[in-house]
Formats: sequence, C-alpha cells, structure tokens
Amino acid sequence: MAKEVTKRSENYSQWYNDLALKADLAEQSAVRGCMVIKPYGYAIWEKMQHILDAAFKEKDVQNAYFPLFIPKSFFSKEAEHVAGFAKECAVVTHHRLMNDPDGKGVVVDPDARLEEELIVRPTSETIIWSTYKNWITSWRDLPVLCNQWANVVRWEMRTRLFLRTAEFLWQEGHTAHATAEEAQQMAETMVQVYADFARNVMALPVIVGHKSPNERFAGALDTLTIEAMMQDGKALQAGTSHFLGQNFAKSFDVQFTNKEGKQEYVWATSWGVSTRLMGALIMAHGDDNGLVLPPRLAPIQVVMVPIYRSEEEHNAVIDKMEQLKKEIEALGHSVKIDDRDTLRPGFKFAEWELKGVPVRLAMGARDLASGTVEVARRDTLTKETMSIEGIAAHIDTLLEDIQQNIYNKALAFRDANVEKCDSWEEFQEKIKTGKFLLCHWDGTAETEQAIKEATKATIRCIPVDSYVCEEEGRDIYSGKPSSRRVVFAISY
Amino acid sequence: MAKEVTKRSENYSQWYNDLALKADLAEQSAVRGCMVIKPYGYAIWEKMQHILDAAFKEKDVQNAYFPLFIPKSFFSKEAEHVAGFAKECAVVTHHRLMNDPDGKGVVVDPDARLEEELIVRPTSETIIWSTYKNWITSWRDLPVLCNQWANVVRWEMRTRLFLRTAEFLWQEGHTAHATAEEAQQMAETMVQVYADFARNVMALPVIVGHKSPNERFAGALDTLTIEAMMQDGKALQAGTSHFLGQNFAKSFDVQFTNKEGKQEYVWATSWGVSTRLMGALIMAHGDDNGLVLPPRLAPIQVVMVPIYRSEEEHNAVIDKMEQLKKEIEALGHSVKIDDRDTLRPGFKFAEWELKGVPVRLAMGARDLASGTVEVARRDTLTKETMSIEGIAAHIDTLLEDIQQNIYNKALAFRDANVEKCDSWEEFQEKIKTGKFLLCHWDGTAETEQAIKEATKATIRCIPVDSYVCEEEGRDIYSGKPSSRRVVFAISY
Repeated sequence: MAKEVTKRSENYSQWYNDLALKADLAEQSAVRGCMVIKPYGYAIWEKMQHILDAAFKEKDVQNAYFPLFIPKSFFSKEAEHVAGFAKECAVVTHHRLMNDPDGKGVVVDPDARLEEELIVRPTSETIIWSTYKNWITSWRDLPVLCNQWANVVRWEMRTRLFLRTAEFLWQEGHTAHATAEEAQQMAETMVQVYADFARNVMALPVIVGHKSPNERFAGALDTLTIEAMMQDGKALQAGTSHFLGQNFAKSFDVQFTNKEGKQEYVWATSWGVSTRLMGALIMAHGDDNGLVLPPRLAPIQVVMVPIYRSEEEHNAVIDKMEQLKKEIEALGHSVKIDDRDTLRPGFKFAEWELKGVPVRLAMGARDLASGTVEVARRDTLTKETMSIEGIAAHIDTLLEDIQQNIYNKALAFRDANVEKCDSWEEFQEKIKTGKFLLCHWDGTAETEQAIKEATKATIRCIPVDSYVCEEEGRDIYSGKPSSRRVVFAISY
Repeated sequence: MAKEVTKRSENYSQWYNDLALKADLAEQSAVRGCMVIKPYGYAIWEKMQHILDAAFKEKDVQNAYFPLFIPKSFFSKEAEHVAGFAKECAVVTHHRLMNDPDGKGVVVDPDARLEEELIVRPTSETIIWSTYKNWITSWRDLPVLCNQWANVVRWEMRTRLFLRTAEFLWQEGHTAHATAEEAQQMAETMVQVYADFARNVMALPVIVGHKSPNERFAGALDTLTIEAMMQDGKALQAGTSHFLGQNFAKSFDVQFTNKEGKQEYVWATSWGVSTRLMGALIMAHGDDNGLVLPPRLAPIQVVMVPIYRSEEEHNAVIDKMEQLKKEIEALGHSVKIDDRDTLRPGFKFAEWELKGVPVRLAMGARDLASGTVEVARRDTLTKETMSIEGIAAHIDTLLEDIQQNIYNKALAFRDANVEKCDSWEEFQEKIKTGKFLLCHWDGTAETEQAIKEATKATIRCIPVDSYVCEEEGRDIYSGKPSSRRVVFAISY
C-alpha cells in the first residue's frame, strides 16, 4: 500500500490528519497556524467556489473586493462585534524593514511605526459598512448585494488543517436592505443556498436552524447555521448566515432616504462558508482507505490503470483507454489515465483510493481480448468486470449513483445517531458517545452555559427543516417549561 | 450627461481617475493606499481571471495556496531579493488586542508580541520555495507547476487606483524544473501566454522583450516583460516572467536526485500579472466619454435602452427587447435591458458610454412599427438604424469587429509613436512628448542610469518579437559601440 493511514477506530484525530496530509490536500507551513493548500486540495476548493459562486449570482449577488486591513478604531465602533472578534488577530504596526545595523539580515525599522495600527481582517463587516456609507443614500441604491472571496486571519493557538487555521479562505456576503423583513428573508435565502450546496454537492445531510443567542455571531440579531454530523458523532458548523439588524448601519452611520423622503438606517446581513468545508468533506465521508469524494467535487472522477506485461500490451491497452477517456469526457466527466511506468498497479490502486477518486477502471490484455473492463467504485470498495460496450453511459449513471449513495450513507448514519433525550443522567452518558440529542431547553443562556460546562455540549441549533419538534416539555437540565426541542451536541 | 469626465487633453491624470471612479471600477478605502474594487470593476477582473486561469491550466499549471505571512528571517535568505523587496512592507508584530484600560476602545496587547515578526507577502518566492523543499526530492517530482491567485501588499507612499496600491490582487506562478533550459523555456512560454492575452483579449498591442539587468526582478537571472503604450505615450509594464536560476533553490536548499543519482539544485521561474491590468485597460482605450471596453472583457456586451411615452409603448418595446435579448444571449453574449423608469434615455446613453459597454441598442414605438433598431457602437461613437431582421447575427459579428478595431486603433497609435532615434539632443526632446524611442545602448548599467537621471526614461525592454533591430550602431548617450536597439520610454 502507498501510504499507511491510521484507522478511524484507533485514533480518529490522527486518521483525519493522515487523510489531509497523505491525500495531498494540505500541509502545515513554515508560519505557525497557517496551512499550504496543495494542488489536489485546492482543486476541490475551486470546484466548491465555482458551484457556490454561480448559486450566489443566481440570487443577484455580485462579487467585489474590500481591503485586507481594517483600522484598529473600526473595532471600537460596534460594541458587541469588538467583544466577539477584536481579540486574537494579526496586528500590523510597522511598514518598513531595514538592514540590521549588526549586519544580520533585516530588522523592523523603528521609525516606520504606523500612526494607527491595522488589523488583518478576521471578517469584514466594519470595513464594508464604512464603504457602504458612500454607496447608499436613497432607497434606489438598495439592495446592495456583495460577496467577496478572500483570506481572513484569526489568531488561533491550537490549529488543525482546514478545521481551525490562523489564515483561511472563505467567501463573505454582505447585503444591505431597506427593510428588516427583506434582510431577514435574505439571511434565510442564503442559509438555504448553503444547505442545498451541502446536501446536493457535498453529500452532507445538514441540519438547518437558528443559533441560540449565546452562539450567535458577534453583532447579529439572528444567526442561521447548517450543522453537519461527522463520523465521530461530533457536530461541525459548516456555514452561517446572519441577520445583523441595523447594528452596523448605526455604527457607521449608513442611512437612506426612503420612498416617503425620511431618513432610515439600513438593514444588514452577512453570510459565509470557508475552507473548513474541506474538513467536513474529509470527516463525513472518508474511510480507513482514505478520502471518499462525492463525484460532484472530485477533481478526477474516473481514473484508469493499465495492466500489462509487455510494451505491446501496454500500447494496446493505452490506445483503448484513450478512446474510452474521450467518450467519458464527452459526457462531462474528468478522466485521468495513470500511465506512470515506475509504479505497480496495486500501488496505484491504493493511491487513488487514498485520494478518493470515485471510479477506477483497470484493463489488461485479457480484458482487451474479452472486451471487458474492471470497474471499481470507491464508496463501496466493490468491483465488477463489465463489458466495455456502453461503458461510458454506465459510468455516467454510476457517478450519479455514487453521489446519491454517499449522501444516503451519511444520512443513515446521522439518523441513527440523533435521539430524543429527556433525562439529564442519560444526556451526560449519551452525549459522550457521539450523539446529537434532541432535548427541551428553557431558553436561558444560564442553562445552556451550565450544560456546556458539565458536558462540553452546546446547542448546535434550533432546527427549522428537519427534526423540528414543537411540543411542550421540560428543560433537560433545569426542568423549567419548554415548548420545543433543540439539538445538543459536542462540536468541532 | 450623467457624470462629468475631465478631458484627456486638459488633465490626463485626472481623466484617468475620473474613469476609474465614475465608471464604478474602484475607489479609495478608509485604509490609506488600499482600494475597494467595486462590482463593475471586479466583474472585469473576474473575466481576466477566468481567461488567464484556463490558459495556465492548458500549460499544465495547477492552482494552490500559500500563506499570507512570511517569517522575517526568510527575507534574509536570498540576498538580492531582500534588497529589492524587503523594505516597504506591512509588518505584523502582535497577535492580540485588548480593551483599553482607559475605556477608550481597544489597544494592542503589549504581552502579545510575536517572537518573530511576520511580513505580509509582497511576493511569495521565499515561502513557496521553503514549501517546495518538502515536495521535491527526485527528478520524478519535477516539474512542479503551481500558480496562486492572491492578494499582496507593498507599502507605497504615492498610490493610484489599480496602477499602484498598497494591496493589490494578482496571480503568481512559481515553477520548479530539473534543467536550466526547461526553466528558461517555461519563462518564455508564460510571457507569450501573457502577450496573447494582452493582444487578443485586452486589445493591447504589447511589446515582448527582456528587461535590462538593472530592471530585472530582485533575484532573477532574466526577466521577460510585456510593455504597453498608454495614450499619453508612457509605457506600462503589464506582466513579467522571470527565470530565477537556482537562487531560491540554493537559499532554501531545494535539491533533487537526477536520473544519474546525483544531487542538483532545482531551477525556478516565477511570473505574474495583477489588477494593474485594469489600469492599462482604462488608459489604453478610454476616451473623453469614458471607458471603452474590448467586448471580450465587457461584463455587459450589449445594453438596450427602451424609448417610450406611454405604458403601452413601454410594454411593447420591452417585449420585443426581451425576445432580442434571448436571441443575442443564445450566441453567447451578455445583454442588459436598462428598464429604470426614473431616468431619461439620454442619461442612460451617457452612463453606458461612461461604463464602456461595446454595443447599445435603442428602440421606440416608431422602431417597432418600422421593424428597426438603433445600433450604437462605443468604440467609434457611431450609430445606425438597422432592420431588426437578423440583428442578433449582426451583433455577433459587430462585437468581433469592435474587438479588432480597438486593437487596431491602439496598434496604429503605438506604431505612430515608436521611433528610431540616434541623436541624444533629439532623444531628450522627443522622450518628453510621449514617444517610445528605439535606440542603441552600450549594455552598461551606468549609461542606463545616466539616461534615467537626465530624462526619467528607462529601458522598457530589449524586444524579441516586434521592433527587433539587430544592427551595429553607437550608444545614444555614451557613443560606445552597440549591436542592437532597445526600447526607451518614460513609464508608469
């Protein structure tokens, strides 16, 4: 086998790292907490970007670009936002290096201190709303629907590839509206865009819901989230969409003249997903052989491995493969022929399994003679010898089957691990075993905090489209009355 | 007219700013030297990105992503590179803010000083070659062909939208090769990719050539460039491709085992274009009415303005326009119907001229009756009433004509302003009037420097595919012998 992968059952966390590293998705860089996204990993991220970008544009969102740096004073403008964000971040204090007077390389030039420090954006609400002030004066200027694809930095002490890194890539949408209703609607529309993407493209059966006030984005009146279950039963927040009310408009004095000629503050949303999705992809679908990529995100959907014992056999097999490749590509799928002559077929099989390629075709001289090909699917690890006749059309269907099967498997796993729970004793036991627990909650931050301290579990969301359970009951911890169940889990 | 634009003849520099601002391409941000790229400007940049990205991928280049930050010590590793780059840059010294003890917002936490300062990348050779060390051990690992689309920061004191900003967006390709020849070939291939893009997509008749040693990228053995002439006769360096030799491989100890089993240092290239191209686009083609966009980069290729005096006329015209829009879109062109009811047609005409939309269609009740439409082209500012029959096919051809015409116009302008010059007296006069002068040069940095000090002119390139002039002569300044002419100009 190509590269040894730790088994999930032995060490889940090490298994995750093995997949990220050995499948060539990413690696640590020379800068603490910052990762390098390698070409194979970046190709997956690019597919995510293209599909999401098209979905945003269908909602009339336009891309733009705002500065990397934010003046420190901006962080003092929105009080709650400061508390949530302004702490662990990269601070630029100087703008020049100089030769070390001792001749040892370069040092920071003490004379080049900035008048006001600049913060490398951890998120861009403040700099964007300071810009929107110039763009918006009348109801005719609304809505403003902008998105940017950008890098952001949040200084994290403990980092993990994709899941938590000091620098990460993301998109952040920032919209401005004339009414609260329209902004709320936008926040809901965008969380559904994320949910559709997660389900149909990433094969992630996410739960959509509202965050509890405690878990809201700093400065938001409402935060919507998509929550995914990983194979260890932990939750991963995969995307969020915020209704920001008029908080940022008030902080940056963004007002518009409404149709009645009166001045009003503008209503805001923001929403984002990041390279964290790559972590979700690895952990939701991978197995002990490596990545399992949903076909819609796989940079290579079909890999072909030739099997031969002579130059003549090699040429004949490759000829046939080239022909098949064209047929499959004509149906819109990406195909790679692995013709490396220094590696044995078994090694190649293991490598492409590690990299999660959905379909593998192997063909040798005997196949040529009998008009067959071996078709292996990554999701089930099964293989089948099939007639080469009509194989392109078969693969077209097979890729769709695999996409669906990966989703169904994740859905079945999730459904098997979501439970109603009405006993605090039981809660404490079960939450440790990787369950999402549907429990009654009294709606107070105090209870939420007490449960978190006792078990590390948090309210992942108050669900809106699956596991919705509006019924009378009593809080799992406090015993106070409650009118709906919420989702508790331990999260990444 | 919508927004007044300064005339080129009155104030060229103000004209440029007017176009960038009033055509909604970009604006200054709250952060000194950093711009906001507005949706209309970003849509053009996205088109550039998509076309270039596809061209890179055709050359087997893969995208990846490397950290924003570079440890300060890395800048001491490649001596020439330091001298060229390490000076004016954004330096991160701290990783935390804290509440101001005086209660006035936030201040930098003095306890959160980084052990080693981090530099916001001005270019990524150093961090990338520190990564390549992990990727390359054998000739089998070569070539490595990576590109990244990223933001970079170079602290500039005097900034201008797109042309010189503290933060800008770019792509930087970084390739690693087993031999010098292969790396040199790659640098040449990529400068030709840029030249093709400039000529065929941006309608910029660029001159391709080598930089003189003085003007090379810091750390390069050879720099290839594409140089464009702006309408004031100044040169704009629009893209560069560098053969870096083994300098970075040696600095970061990147060696590979060759086929003979011996250790060798790897050979490098790097190449990039940036949002500076947006500045070139504005200045090469714009006129006193605004932007003139080559159809291949125009976010909106055809705009339709309805003319009506009643609700009934409005509906009839819009119906017809919707139908036309579908036909034109089916041919692969982007169309916008400007149905804003608060603005007069004349205002709309001026606005779309300002924004450089290649083709404008106007239609009123009389046109409907006679089966005609008014077709206006932005490049020539001419208009013509045409039969609506077959108009979609006509526009298809027209857009191609406009693309070609914009190129031809720029080419004719350039050819009229490139001259051979053999007299130093004449040189000093002519260079001020916005000419590219083809002159003999003795090949020394001293002469180049003296000419620059006397006239501000620099050697833009030693041309390789146009204006190549290998002949014996005498240096324009020193009178020493020379065997070829080079291009001198004053540059942006």
